[in-house]
Amino acid sequence: MYAIGVDLGGTSIKVALVKRGEGIVREASRPTEAERGPEHILNLIADLITNVASEIGLSHVVGIGVGAPGSIDLRQQTVAYPPNLPGWGVIDVEEELQKRLGRALRVVVDNDANVAGLGSAFFGAGRSFPSFIMITLGTGVGGAIIYEKKLFRGMTGAAGEIGHMTIDYDGPPANSGVRGAVEAYLGNSFLTDHARRLLQAHPESQVFALLGPDLEGLTPRHLHEAAQAGDVAAREVLAWAGQKLGCVLGAVINLLDIRKIIVGGGVSAAGDFILQPARETVRAYVLTGLRDGIEILQETLGNEAGMLGAAYLIFEKADERASRMVV
Amino acid sequence: MYAIGVDLGGTSIKVALVKRGEGIVREASRPTEAERGPEHILNLIADLITNVASEIGLSHVVGIGVGAPGSIDLRQQTVAYPPNLPGWGVIDVEEELQKRLGRALRVVVDNDANVAGLGSAFFGAGRSFPSFIMITLGTGVGGAIIYEKKLFRGMTGAAGEIGHMTIDYDGPPANSGVRGAVEAYLGNSFLTDHARRLLQAHPESQVFALLGPDLEGLTPRHLHEAAQAGDVAAREVLAWAGQKLGCVLGAVINLLDIRKIIVGGGVSAAGDFILQPARETVRAYVLTGLRDGIEILQETLGNEAGMLGAAYLIFEKADERASRMVV
Repeated sequence: MYAIGVDLGGTSIKVALVKRGEGIVREASRPTEAERGPEHILNLIADLITNVASEIGLSHVVGIGVGAPGSIDLRQQTVAYPPNLPGWGVIDVEEELQKRLGRALRVVVDNDANVAGLGSAFFGAGRSFPSFIMITLGTGVGGAIIYEKKLFRGMTGAAGEIGHMTIDYDGPPANSGVRGAVEAYLGNSFLTDHARRLLQAHPESQVFALLGPDLEGLTPRHLHEAAQAGDVAAREVLAWAGQKLGCVLGAVINLLDIRKIIVGGGVSAAGDFILQPARETVRAYVLTGLRDGIEILQETLGNEAGMLGAAYLIFEKADERASRMVV
Repeated sequence: MYAIGVDLGGTSIKVALVKRGEGIVREASRPTEAERGPEHILNLIADLITNVASEIGLSHVVGIGVGAPGSIDLRQQTVAYPPNLPGWGVIDVEEELQKRLGRALRVVVDNDANVAGLGSAFFGAGRSFPSFIMITLGTGVGGAIIYEKKLFRGMTGAAGEIGHMTIDYDGPPANSGVRGAVEAYLGNSFLTDHARRLLQAHPESQVFALLGPDLEGLTPRHLHEAAQAGDVAAREVLAWAGQKLGCVLGAVINLLDIRKIIVGGGVSAAGDFILQPARETVRAYVLTGLRDGIEILQETLGNEAGMLGAAYLIFEKADERASRMVV
């Protein structure tokens, strides 16, 4: 069984033809050029789909799964107001892609963190766990709950917003306005702001040599590279981030009794510089009886997680249909 | 279909004969006298069961559900180290009750917050919601997740420990050691400690007239009664508690996208003095897109919730068996 997986991001669009049980058969990507508007983006997606499906032909594809930022409707076909795609508004992605591809192909949309969770569950670090928490560290902090090999969606499909859980009711506000939300510590720009402040006390840090006294253009990747090179201050910043991660994961484990955590997204590349402090901190924020078996692991799929998870949306729907037919 | 529901608490044991679809047919209770040890308690439970089942006869009872404090094993038959039952250790409640009743009656045990959640879902304020969060405010702060009319149990049945979620990673420690855990604000003794501190600045409060200058024996009930009589300081304490409740409920709603909350347990008797501040605060701690449809309601079942929920453990097992037979 073949499906198309689309990973629609603010900087690039990645599309893959995925074979069930095997993985990516063919992939292609293009810069999103978000400023050129939704028409351009939808045309790009349709072109990339035609491209990756050219060898087997679209008639052999069961459907198209799309991971996207923004709000997804309950039928999982519409994407509304994605934060990094200006002028997008509310778009029925199924209708628009069908129009462009000239085919009534099934389209299923879900939010990017959910899709990363599915990718991990069926192709990545989550494969060994029936239940786990996915947390994605990037511009924003997203999350997904995989429970007994299925996405836990909540009442409207919006479950998993770990990034907006508070760990300090009187703390700094995130962009959402929530005080002490995890995103206000671990979101890319919040993390680099904190690094800039902390690094002022460490003029010896290699990061200054790299970026100059204003630390302009500082990204989590710079911190990770400096930490690898032994930079004490950079390690301190990443440990601080890991501790905040440990606090919220403790709260999540207490609530869900799901003790396997997979960390993905750009910032997760810093690996143990963040994850080891998280592993140490989490124990202090979890009931004693829930501490056995806690694991915090790095997602290993990298760029492919989104495409694979998006394709899985289609395999999942096919399974649901099949099980309805049997009953 | 009849089942027995047992609510095993540190101060009293309540037992009911429950008819499916109708409710409590007959009930009886006795003080736990926990200091007399587990043999005494198990004898009491068996006596109360015989008593409430005397009219229909134990042969017409499908099973015995028990809500208990402490850790429950995965087979749901053993209760280990309940905090308020000294000398209990680890006891197979099924075996002990079968021995005393002279019958191989099915026994299913679950923790008290889960049982309160089931009671609410099928007999109480939760009846109108397929999915909701139960939070119980008492000596400790417990919780349960009801998702699509079923308990969400997590990996080992321990899900729902809302009381141990942190809302301030640097806050005061609860008895569990977790800093800023909700229980460190809303647990009975923490709440009354806070009240004692705050009331020092309010010598005009009626609570002093009631309890004397040391406020010895202060309970949440005194605060509630004073608040009802218009006492400003007592209202302030309860509002403070409600705000803390709102913070953690915001985190829970972000994670689960379940927006109906039922508040039970002794302290919930304070009703809107706590719940209204919680309703106002929760909105600031939830993503904008998740604010529609949030409801925070008081459980109305009172003392009966535990017995009814415990009996439901048996009805639930009977349903599972029936659905396995159909498949």
